[in-house]
Amino acid sequence: MNILLTIAYDGTNYCGWQRQVGQISVQEKVEIAGEKLFKQKIVLNAAGRTDSGVHAVGQKANFYVDTKIPVEKIPLTMNQFLPEDIVATAAELVPDDFHARYHAKRKTYEYKILNSRFLVPTLRNYTEHIYWNLDVEKMREASTFFVGTHDFKGFCSSKIAVKTTVRTIYEFEVKKENDIISLKITGNGFLYNMIRIIAGTLIRVGDGRIKTSDIPHIIEKKDRKLAGKTASAGGLTLLAINYGG
Amino acid sequence: MNILLTIAYDGTNYCGWQRQVGQISVQEKVEIAGEKLFKQKIVLNAAGRTDSGVHAVGQKANFYVDTKIPVEKIPLTMNQFLPEDIVATAAELVPDDFHARYHAKRKTYEYKILNSRFLVPTLRNYTEHIYWNLDVEKMREASTFFVGTHDFKGFCSSKIAVKTTVRTIYEFEVKKENDIISLKITGNGFLYNMIRIIAGTLIRVGDGRIKTSDIPHIIEKKDRKLAGKTASAGGLTLLAINYGG
Repeated sequence: MNILLTIAYDGTNYCGWQRQVGQISVQEKVEIAGEKLFKQKIVLNAAGRTDSGVHAVGQKANFYVDTKIPVEKIPLTMNQFLPEDIVATAAELVPDDFHARYHAKRKTYEYKILNSRFLVPTLRNYTEHIYWNLDVEKMREASTFFVGTHDFKGFCSSKIAVKTTVRTIYEFEVKKENDIISLKITGNGFLYNMIRIIAGTLIRVGDGRIKTSDIPHIIEKKDRKLAGKTASAGGLTLLAINYGG
Repeated sequence: MNILLTIAYDGTNYCGWQRQVGQISVQEKVEIAGEKLFKQKIVLNAAGRTDSGVHAVGQKANFYVDTKIPVEKIPLTMNQFLPEDIVATAAELVPDDFHARYHAKRKTYEYKILNSRFLVPTLRNYTEHIYWNLDVEKMREASTFFVGTHDFKGFCSSKIAVKTTVRTIYEFEVKKENDIISLKITGNGFLYNMIRIIAGTLIRVGDGRIKTSDIPHIIEKKDRKLAGKTASAGGLTLLAINYGG
């Protein structure tokens, strides 16, 4: 049977989702827990291969297993074999040909910026700290230019070869609560580092180094050097994966 | 000169505020940073001696130093010598006889409970996780009985000898936002583990094991066994120390 798992994790102490030789990944930890629980090897296909330091609330991953454990009992039983910074929160039976990544229709990420004179120590791994004042209204204006279907070639790191750099952003919400500016982005998929580069670009809009009205031009030029720097991994959280279309 | 410092920290990796032989304390880290900055030994008197795992946003500590560094520059310069989980956020000159603990008039702490079926991994060190449903309205009702001047003998651990176990609670706010229940308590001082025991007691009120109407009786009996268990350290944050009276 093919099981789709929902997983939350604190990415601080991991090299990222994906297994890497000589490093500790979230994938490895979940596969080890699965092996202990099911007494057989499992291999996870995750919807989003988050980087080192990136967190997840609603990561999705499917795996094949032959088990008599009722599907709804899998999260709680699996959590007994997981470290405290990784938590399985749901499991469901999916069709045999279902693949967590290939069948994902929408992905939602949140990027959090702590905009305060001093760092709040308990938020150091979960936000990007900017101590000069950011103009949230300008950042919100700039965010609207990213919505829609664009070639985001200028907003990706060249680590992974992809067929196309065209992606669609459905929603982009910018809000501020106390000292935290939250960027919530939903799209059909994201290029490598794309959200962190968009976040870095909005930070430059917020501090005035990039003009809001320059954003369409920056997108159009497809030149990585025109966008802002890649914001830190800790500010990023994978919120949800949607398969509904 | 006598300097009053405001300090924020993530208490997760420390044995608590106070220096302890063979362990790493927040006090030691700040004193080491001060020694590097001022080229002389400093000794800190803190307003609240927080336990291991307890956090602070507005800890206050005074120390005597002979320096030409302008007082307002102390936080930023000191932060260069502090680890990233300790941040000095303010400094002010105070009279020679001022003592951060003895002169504190009001202390405000917050206790955070994550009330959700599954633990949120990024909150594991900053909340107490309760997975069964808590009745916040009952907890709020119960909180009102703690306000005022009472003998809190039944709400302290017997670690430290004190002259009196009578304390005054000025304000006690209970609110819920998303899955987080926050207890915010202001008083003239707190006994050892007092807030964590009050939090543990309110958790039992929330789950129905203690009736709201039993709280006055439990306070009156002064018997530690009648109160709830001591809630975990990670949920507790020292928010503010007030010297205004």
